[in-house]
Amino acid sequence: MIDIEKARAETPGCAHVVHLNNAGAALPPRAVLDAVKGHLDLEAHIGGYEARERAAPELDRFYDALAELLGAHRDEIAYVENATRAWDMAFYSVPFKPGDRILTTTSEYVSNGLAYLQMARSRGVSVEVVPDDADGTISLEALEAELGKGGVRLVAINHVPTHNGLVNPAAEVGRLCRQAGVLYLLDACQSVGQLRLNVAELGCDMLSGTGRKFLRGPRGTGFLYVRRSLLAELEPPFIDLHAASWLTPSTFEIRPDARRFENWERYFAGQIGLGVAVDYALALGIDAIEARVRDLGSDLRARLSERPDVTVHDRGARRSGIVTFTVAGQDSEELTNRLRERGVNVSATDPDQRFDSVAPESAVRASVHYYNTEDDLARLIEAL
Amino acid sequence: MIDIEKARAETPGCAHVVHLNNAGAALPPRAVLDAVKGHLDLEAHIGGYEARERAAPELDRFYDALAELLGAHRDEIAYVENATRAWDMAFYSVPFKPGDRILTTTSEYVSNGLAYLQMARSRGVSVEVVPDDADGTISLEALEAELGKGGVRLVAINHVPTHNGLVNPAAEVGRLCRQAGVLYLLDACQSVGQLRLNVAELGCDMLSGTGRKFLRGPRGTGFLYVRRSLLAELEPPFIDLHAASWLTPSTFEIRPDARRFENWERYFAGQIGLGVAVDYALALGIDAIEARVRDLGSDLRARLSERPDVTVHDRGARRSGIVTFTVAGQDSEELTNRLRERGVNVSATDPDQRFDSVAPESAVRASVHYYNTEDDLARLIEAL
Repeated sequence: MIDIEKARAETPGCAHVVHLNNAGAALPPRAVLDAVKGHLDLEAHIGGYEARERAAPELDRFYDALAELLGAHRDEIAYVENATRAWDMAFYSVPFKPGDRILTTTSEYVSNGLAYLQMARSRGVSVEVVPDDADGTISLEALEAELGKGGVRLVAINHVPTHNGLVNPAAEVGRLCRQAGVLYLLDACQSVGQLRLNVAELGCDMLSGTGRKFLRGPRGTGFLYVRRSLLAELEPPFIDLHAASWLTPSTFEIRPDARRFENWERYFAGQIGLGVAVDYALALGIDAIEARVRDLGSDLRARLSERPDVTVHDRGARRSGIVTFTVAGQDSEELTNRLRERGVNVSATDPDQRFDSVAPESAVRASVHYYNTEDDLARLIEAL
Repeated sequence: MIDIEKARAETPGCAHVVHLNNAGAALPPRAVLDAVKGHLDLEAHIGGYEARERAAPELDRFYDALAELLGAHRDEIAYVENATRAWDMAFYSVPFKPGDRILTTTSEYVSNGLAYLQMARSRGVSVEVVPDDADGTISLEALEAELGKGGVRLVAINHVPTHNGLVNPAAEVGRLCRQAGVLYLLDACQSVGQLRLNVAELGCDMLSGTGRKFLRGPRGTGFLYVRRSLLAELEPPFIDLHAASWLTPSTFEIRPDARRFENWERYFAGQIGLGVAVDYALALGIDAIEARVRDLGSDLRARLSERPDVTVHDRGARRSGIVTFTVAGQDSEELTNRLRERGVNVSATDPDQRFDSVAPESAVRASVHYYNTEDDLARLIEAL
């Protein structure tokens, strides 16, 4: 059980706002904020390079913390500046050939969808959207059938979409990919920090995530996991003096671990802060976080469903802390702005969901975290 | 004239260290540190997305400040997470074909050298190092001759190398590239903030830079300039929902301005901080900064040259604030560490300079900025 009062007391923002925009960026705990600001102070006082050396243990802890969170090895973890670039570093390193098939879901994230189309244009890959089950999650039956046809180079899906409360059956997808011997890239941007993730159970080869959402880390931070046995096959689309060594005027060697996907210069204070955020989540317990987020999400959907003018759009047998809804006769963007003026932070979903033909043009997204309370949910309902 | 006492009083680190590692990361002014920490506090108090909206004017100022600094238009500026990634976004967007020639210098930065070799391997380009003049800068005569042979797709050089005090004749290179109608990418990582830069005078098509060095901005920040008339020809190697719009399930459109090279999620506090750093430099006056850095650099070289056991390695008729030297019988790495223990921050140069056959394996690099004093230089000499 999480001590909610303690968690709120340790979260400066809880005194200021009803924050139901955790799928945008969550409120960080004070420990994270202090770690980031503390390193910035150190850089200003003794110099940026000198601060990096002194903070070597905290920077190093990042890799162990992420490895522990994901059930991975520290050599399989890269620090990347955000989840999209982390996903990019994996996706664009796959040696696609013309005609290779990429399978994805209807609920795929907009930026990933754009990357597929760019790859289709530049290398002639085929981008195919696997149909949904009746509940809106990826159909395992359809996926298995498509894998059976051959020619699939990559299955890439999101675990939790950004614009709907469903949870895709990521581990079942992983099982099918392993059976078929096909690469599997899981976008865990919206699931890491709110759901238990274990790369062995998920069966994924690559997994990307962000710091700022359910992990409660700093903005401008993200990470990439790549399975160790796969690393040598994936040449990063960019390399620098951290990712590779320059051996002779015409030869170089890329480092063997996942840090081949990093760049040397980075937001070091953010790396420290994200490590602290992961440790904070691990100390509370991911299972306890997951249970509370699920319960608060269910509670909010129930409260919203009581109102005749509200339509809840979340699908999926299993659901996340993301709650999406529209209010009859109201523009979701405007409603989001009005709620924010009343001290209730929510967001509006992106209308550019081109693979998802049933998503509303725009919906209000209220995303809960464990530090939210019943009172927060009541204040949202009131503000509506 | 710069009021040095005021500048030092506004720099918290001046009370703690003799900082001669400005080519690594300079000490930020308090205004920069406060801007970054202030935005982090705002994010923690009202939410990350909500803070971004409230800070829209400061985030927007970044583009105008950089445009003013470089003599560019704000639509030609992108915020990128560091100078190497900024350079990468430009370099990897050039549509190279097999056999295309890339011309560079002996003093090219290690990460850029690695990118050339990667491009040579993946697309069959030819990487050619233009010989130096006697003073170690790129030979304009040799460059002109190579351009005259045809087949050159890109000239890419650094303005100020990271491991030597020389300044390459960037504007003269630009003139030759324009005459030849060849793309010109200038790495200004070590020159921006210490030398006056004007993209029209430099004649460059693309220019990359960092926040943390002579601009005195935050770590984990950088920028890219791309000439407006060139933008449509350069498709970024990665795209996201900020760089492009998803029009239909199979079509997309990349935005027309330089922000096509950005990603949506970023270190917003750093962007604000870098804007403040640029404004701080503009208020002092770039010409005044340049003159003082040059004079301090000359002074330091003179002091070092008085010692019989010291060899100064800087070349070039025109020199930067970077001073490189070795001490007879001493390992430069160890010496750097000992100096740092005595409160004098310097760094050691990277030994992997594979195009530069005359560079010492490693040298001590002492890099001055305008807030340094004669006393700082004296303390370095003493500590030696």
